[in-house]
Amino acid sequence: MAKDLQILPLGGMGEIGKNMTVYEYGRNIMIVDCGVMFPENDMYGIDLVLPDYKYIIDNQELVRGIVLTHGHMDHIAALPYLLQEIDVPVYGTPLTLGLVKRQLEEKNLLQRADLRVLSREETLHLGPFRVSPFAVAHSIPDAVGLVIDTPVGAIVHTGDYKLDETPAGGRTTDLQALGNLTKNGVLALVADSTNADRPGRTETEQVVRDTLNRLFAEAKGQRIIIATFSSVLARLQEIMTLAQLHNRKVALTGRSLLQNVELARDLGYLDVPKNLLVDVTARIPKGQMLILSTGSQGEPRSALNRMSDGTHRQVRIGEGDTVIISGGTIPGNEEDVGRMLNNLFERGANVIYGRMATTHVSGHGSRDEMRAMIEAVRPKYIIPAHGEARHLHLHAQLARDTGMDTGDVFVLKNGIPWLSDGKRAWTGEAIPLDEVYVDGRLIGEIGEVVMRDRQRLSQDGFIVALIPVDKRRQLVGEPQIVSRGFVYLNEAEELISAAQNEIKQQYKRGAKDLRRALEDFFYRETHSRPVVLPRFVNV
Amino acid sequence: MAKDLQILPLGGMGEIGKNMTVYEYGRNIMIVDCGVMFPENDMYGIDLVLPDYKYIIDNQELVRGIVLTHGHMDHIAALPYLLQEIDVPVYGTPLTLGLVKRQLEEKNLLQRADLRVLSREETLHLGPFRVSPFAVAHSIPDAVGLVIDTPVGAIVHTGDYKLDETPAGGRTTDLQALGNLTKNGVLALVADSTNADRPGRTETEQVVRDTLNRLFAEAKGQRIIIATFSSVLARLQEIMTLAQLHNRKVALTGRSLLQNVELARDLGYLDVPKNLLVDVTARIPKGQMLILSTGSQGEPRSALNRMSDGTHRQVRIGEGDTVIISGGTIPGNEEDVGRMLNNLFERGANVIYGRMATTHVSGHGSRDEMRAMIEAVRPKYIIPAHGEARHLHLHAQLARDTGMDTGDVFVLKNGIPWLSDGKRAWTGEAIPLDEVYVDGRLIGEIGEVVMRDRQRLSQDGFIVALIPVDKRRQLVGEPQIVSRGFVYLNEAEELISAAQNEIKQQYKRGAKDLRRALEDFFYRETHSRPVVLPRFVNV
Repeated sequence: MAKDLQILPLGGMGEIGKNMTVYEYGRNIMIVDCGVMFPENDMYGIDLVLPDYKYIIDNQELVRGIVLTHGHMDHIAALPYLLQEIDVPVYGTPLTLGLVKRQLEEKNLLQRADLRVLSREETLHLGPFRVSPFAVAHSIPDAVGLVIDTPVGAIVHTGDYKLDETPAGGRTTDLQALGNLTKNGVLALVADSTNADRPGRTETEQVVRDTLNRLFAEAKGQRIIIATFSSVLARLQEIMTLAQLHNRKVALTGRSLLQNVELARDLGYLDVPKNLLVDVTARIPKGQMLILSTGSQGEPRSALNRMSDGTHRQVRIGEGDTVIISGGTIPGNEEDVGRMLNNLFERGANVIYGRMATTHVSGHGSRDEMRAMIEAVRPKYIIPAHGEARHLHLHAQLARDTGMDTGDVFVLKNGIPWLSDGKRAWTGEAIPLDEVYVDGRLIGEIGEVVMRDRQRLSQDGFIVALIPVDKRRQLVGEPQIVSRGFVYLNEAEELISAAQNEIKQQYKRGAKDLRRALEDFFYRETHSRPVVLPRFVNV
Repeated sequence: MAKDLQILPLGGMGEIGKNMTVYEYGRNIMIVDCGVMFPENDMYGIDLVLPDYKYIIDNQELVRGIVLTHGHMDHIAALPYLLQEIDVPVYGTPLTLGLVKRQLEEKNLLQRADLRVLSREETLHLGPFRVSPFAVAHSIPDAVGLVIDTPVGAIVHTGDYKLDETPAGGRTTDLQALGNLTKNGVLALVADSTNADRPGRTETEQVVRDTLNRLFAEAKGQRIIIATFSSVLARLQEIMTLAQLHNRKVALTGRSLLQNVELARDLGYLDVPKNLLVDVTARIPKGQMLILSTGSQGEPRSALNRMSDGTHRQVRIGEGDTVIISGGTIPGNEEDVGRMLNNLFERGANVIYGRMATTHVSGHGSRDEMRAMIEAVRPKYIIPAHGEARHLHLHAQLARDTGMDTGDVFVLKNGIPWLSDGKRAWTGEAIPLDEVYVDGRLIGEIGEVVMRDRQRLSQDGFIVALIPVDKRRQLVGEPQIVSRGFVYLNEAEELISAAQNEIKQQYKRGAKDLRRALEDFFYRETHSRPVVLPRFVNV
């Protein structure tokens, strides 16, 4: 193994989120990104999912550093968890580190952390790895891809990117720098697959600017409220510039938005004209006001959702308001977003969303851009990354379409290492990984059993049957039923007393499996399958 | 009231589903449609939602008939519930009645039902209402809109429609018949709002035919598996015709698909070439086989989902299979569909879905078609129907854009009656309606309380604390904890024994609200909020 490079994905393969990739050569490890995943709708009660970084903990003495590509949560937000367990230097561009700092502060870890600025002009040496960042266009400024020179060849790790030629902030993906850095050839391309199912090119951010400019003009005399992702910092810049142009003041609402604007401004990534910002309660004519808000996903506690259901403390929505949703709906959030939009319309607002106008474009390149990346890099091998299985496979298909051999295209899973000696490449034995769920303060303690119980409880609730018995295990008195989420007990007296009778009969009959008997009883009566737990109480 | 027409929506306003509208004049009621709604993701454990038809039950002696516009579940599937409570004739076109019959058979109600064929050539007299159907293009054959002549003027009730000029089955929306039926003017237009947020026109079904034709040609030598809605009967016809053209046999899998094909074929709505259909287990070369399957929404128990996770009894998916998803994803199903697609790719299939090719178009018209309908009908009043609040409001906006006065545009809610004497129109007092949930055998018994409990149980599970006390209410012995869905008990001994101590201490301290104290304890320890239920057990 000493002479082989190993690339081991701990997250980001077969999922969109918790990106984390381990590069290993000899007794040296460097890590790219350390992100979280937001839970899917069937991950009941889960706040976050972390990559399973047991492998890193077990090999911590080998780790030379963590290099971050950009400051989005799916690339940095697992750091506060990992850095509680190991000490390792973290490298990132200034804005990325600024966002990391805030994450660490919230967990009181900032003192301990060793954060180092990654400069686009310099090459970082981490053991045998030479890491050269190159600028990429993405929906957050200061994003980079990495050329990682290793003893067996150069790896291009794109991070998230698009090839937008008129992006927000004016920073395009630097294909020239990439070309210079890779002029000796590329062993493998590890590339973003997010939009592998979208033909063509992702629309340029310029379209969003033009659309917003038009909508601002049309909303003359109306208050404008724009909801967007607080992390899409480049979009915030556009909106502020346009607001200035249309003689509007800007008020911010939503905690993450306030924090991100402050941070980006302090670091010089956001040019906020003097006197532009006002408080959301400022007495300003509607036609001169613009409120920037969180909540493009209909998140229950977000600012816009609170405005929509009338619980926002400062902003009342009604006629004379134009609400613009400037953020695509993340799969799984459609119903929340839909409900919020309905409420906004019912309050009399003019709402612009979805297909009605291009107020959002993706930060990830589509198929034609992915093809252009492959053709620019001409790698010997390709490892599609950052996508669910369908995206990885479609990216692989695209690579084959460009002429790559099937055997040179590697669709991996988390935990499956890719190895190469520079001449050949192969996959190694999978290391077993767990899903590490964060649920309140519990990290990694909630597993499949609890999740299945929650799923079942969510459908049909539970019944605890308390069965009073004496020392001889004889039934003494009436069984008690404790239940929630099954039926409304106050109106189900008949059912409950029938259940009590069933328990007594089954018990007297000497039923071997009382739980099973009760489950059958409730299914017969209601066609539901609540969680049933009989408990004997010694009286 | 005797001289006023009342239109009372019992469903379909502010929601997509459970369409049911009551037309009332003097002591006469006629009903248009009687559908169900499929539950949203936050309706935990619910199978279906019914319109609240208490008003119909209370006024059953006035009901002259129910008229159905087409055979989709959101327009007919509440009939088996309503017809258990009242006897009333049901009118529909032959295919619609065929689908109703199957629904009634499943509940053993067919004998009792009074089903009558609605002919497009005749006018139906229901008390003071004269009902004339006109053909509409939709994704199921035999769909109609209705012109309802009433003593105060004509109402046009569109049902679901698009203005596709090259639709499936060759049947376009008959604007000429509509024109003839409404030449004396239209009092009100009650119109489909589903796609009010889509600019332009809905693509024609011809595009789907062309796309499938191309994909069939490209899949030479491969087995083709197409998943679509079993209710999109017109699409099934296209697929069968194309299969014949490409020399493929067709096998059907999925119960609803088999039933619908049989029904439509028997009634002459589906032209199935001789010897085209084969059993799914037939030994036929892959390149000559096409499997038509249910499961375009990733429904866990559907045929395609079973193929994707390897549990389908007859079909194994792998390399050499081309899978085509020919059905749009209904909001809320994105994650299920995504998981299924991932599994199909991982099995080696070539999968075509989403934006990759136009393999599905909506059955509802978009904004330009809605505008054309308004301009064809030129109603005095408009009542946007069949949509969530955002769709109704956007439809209203469109009507105002065509020149209608704001006061002539009525955005209603379920239970709010619209009234007119032919000269003026106004809304009446809302009648209170409930959400009627079907959960297994329980109809209307599951309410907000149970739903809230299920929501909470889904997040953090429950804890029942059994506290043994003697006759004097003194604690005797150790409290027992019964729990599911909170933490994995086998690995949480410390937490449980801390909880037991907390109970003892709180009890001895004479805590007034033991439940609250325990909730606080668990929140402190875990930042979770399980449902906590302390119960005293007399020992």
